[in-house]
Amino acid sequence: MSSATEPSHTAVAQFSDRVAEAVERKRTQLVVGLDPRVDLLPMELRGEAVSGRPAAAAAVERFCKGIVDAVSPYVAAVKPQVAFFEALGSDGWQALESVTRYASEAGLLVIADAKRGDIGSTARAYAAAFLEPRGSEPPLADALTVNPYLGTDSMDPFLSACRNHGSGLFCLVRTSNAGGRDIQEATLSDGTPLWRHVAGLVDEWGADFVGEHGMSSVGAVVGATVPRLMGDARKAMPQAIILLPGVGAQGASPADVARAFTSGPASALVNSSRSVIYAYRETEADWREAAAAEAARLADEIWAASGW
Amino acid sequence: MSSATEPSHTAVAQFSDRVAEAVERKRTQLVVGLDPRVDLLPMELRGEAVSGRPAAAAAVERFCKGIVDAVSPYVAAVKPQVAFFEALGSDGWQALESVTRYASEAGLLVIADAKRGDIGSTARAYAAAFLEPRGSEPPLADALTVNPYLGTDSMDPFLSACRNHGSGLFCLVRTSNAGGRDIQEATLSDGTPLWRHVAGLVDEWGADFVGEHGMSSVGAVVGATVPRLMGDARKAMPQAIILLPGVGAQGASPADVARAFTSGPASALVNSSRSVIYAYRETEADWREAAAAEAARLADEIWAASGW
Repeated sequence: MSSATEPSHTAVAQFSDRVAEAVERKRTQLVVGLDPRVDLLPMELRGEAVSGRPAAAAAVERFCKGIVDAVSPYVAAVKPQVAFFEALGSDGWQALESVTRYASEAGLLVIADAKRGDIGSTARAYAAAFLEPRGSEPPLADALTVNPYLGTDSMDPFLSACRNHGSGLFCLVRTSNAGGRDIQEATLSDGTPLWRHVAGLVDEWGADFVGEHGMSSVGAVVGATVPRLMGDARKAMPQAIILLPGVGAQGASPADVARAFTSGPASALVNSSRSVIYAYRETEADWREAAAAEAARLADEIWAASGW
Repeated sequence: MSSATEPSHTAVAQFSDRVAEAVERKRTQLVVGLDPRVDLLPMELRGEAVSGRPAAAAAVERFCKGIVDAVSPYVAAVKPQVAFFEALGSDGWQALESVTRYASEAGLLVIADAKRGDIGSTARAYAAAFLEPRGSEPPLADALTVNPYLGTDSMDPFLSACRNHGSGLFCLVRTSNAGGRDIQEATLSDGTPLWRHVAGLVDEWGADFVGEHGMSSVGAVVGATVPRLMGDARKAMPQAIILLPGVGAQGASPADVARAFTSGPASALVNSSRSVIYAYRETEADWREAAAAEAARLADEIWAASGW
């Protein structure tokens, strides 16, 4: 982008550089998660949603687009949680396609939170579903969350998308839930927890995708609910953009995440879902206004905590 | 089912008992994987598929229904690989819904191969997507493949579906791909590989769901390509139905799988995808006839190898 020479083989800039550009321009590392649960929708939309899946999907679509409008000035990206769309079947997938297109057109990066992972030939199909252009249409998402359990060859098709389409990945390393410890904290023969081994793999996988801002397009998910691990995670993956879920409804505070930002202002993204999109439930305000206010507040707090 | 007393709280029989019933009645432990790749469809369908996603999804739907018709006498279940449908977006999901309904109506068990795994609230949405009744419609699938990386609480919503809807699960333990070793074979401090630890968790998770045939509805995926591990896997999970991918195109032979069957004729299911559904590519025969012939041949070979 900033180079005057030939453009690289990638028509689109590295995902990590697109993140850096958005973070620095908008002064925010906030990502708002789109987790549309029909039973939590504002009353005006919930009423529409009761008459079957197509109606529910239409209500979800309106809700998510309203949230995109509301939070757009305060976020670097939105993160649709694919499960909540998939729960509405093909109608939900249609809503997902419409919402992601809308968010892209609003200038936001889209991180599809799908946690996919499968053997090579199947992972290729998931890469096509989420990260590759669809005929004349752009990819569904700019980045995808992936699950590492199937190892390096299961990552290859996703890494190809990083190479060919400037996609980003966020690989699960240490998740924010209590059960995260059951497997991720298993102690290896050298005394380290399994997640450290996975972090090492993420660092390797990302080595080819370091952008002009020094960060890799292969990032990692590390729960903000385990702040004591953040320093270790950063050390093991100095170039990974760390996506931190767990701020807000899951109990972590912005200060818990500061250590993730030691590699730069765009070296971490902090996700908040429920506490932003359902902020209206705690106030008298319109649901869009409540989401905007909470996103603005969180974005400022995280920016300050990041130390940049 | 065989009891004359009150039905249990589950309206539908345990998944493991439904598997046992199908295996014993049809004398087959074969599962055929539905991995519809547009570029591998028979010419008569591929021609239709080139004019965009809706047309491709329609061709995929016709293909999968033709395969269901062809292999139905020889299989206990079909296993749609969700990625290949998802690669066609909402049109693909519509095809998935139609194909799974068709297979259920043909009396086949449906194992959705989606390898989902996420934190509790999100896993609940995936359970709704795949395993729970959809309004007046039955669940999309009888069983789901799941990824254990997020630990016990990520399994709870799926286990609830086992309890409430007689669903089945197949948890990834040791996968059939080369990269399976990168994480699954990490050596723990007690000298065992990680997958053994995961197998122990699967055994625990499944303890509440052991049916009348002595097998649990919480099964495990263990690649047939690593036969030397099969005895260990069976010992660690004596009641798990082991789903073995990798026979056929991935290189394992039916004899490689014999050790999985030591807990009974329905204690393992053997999946073959490409070598059955694309069998027509090796012959002059009609694609349906070729698939039926290969399914019949494999079913017999596996039944013999199982020793029952």
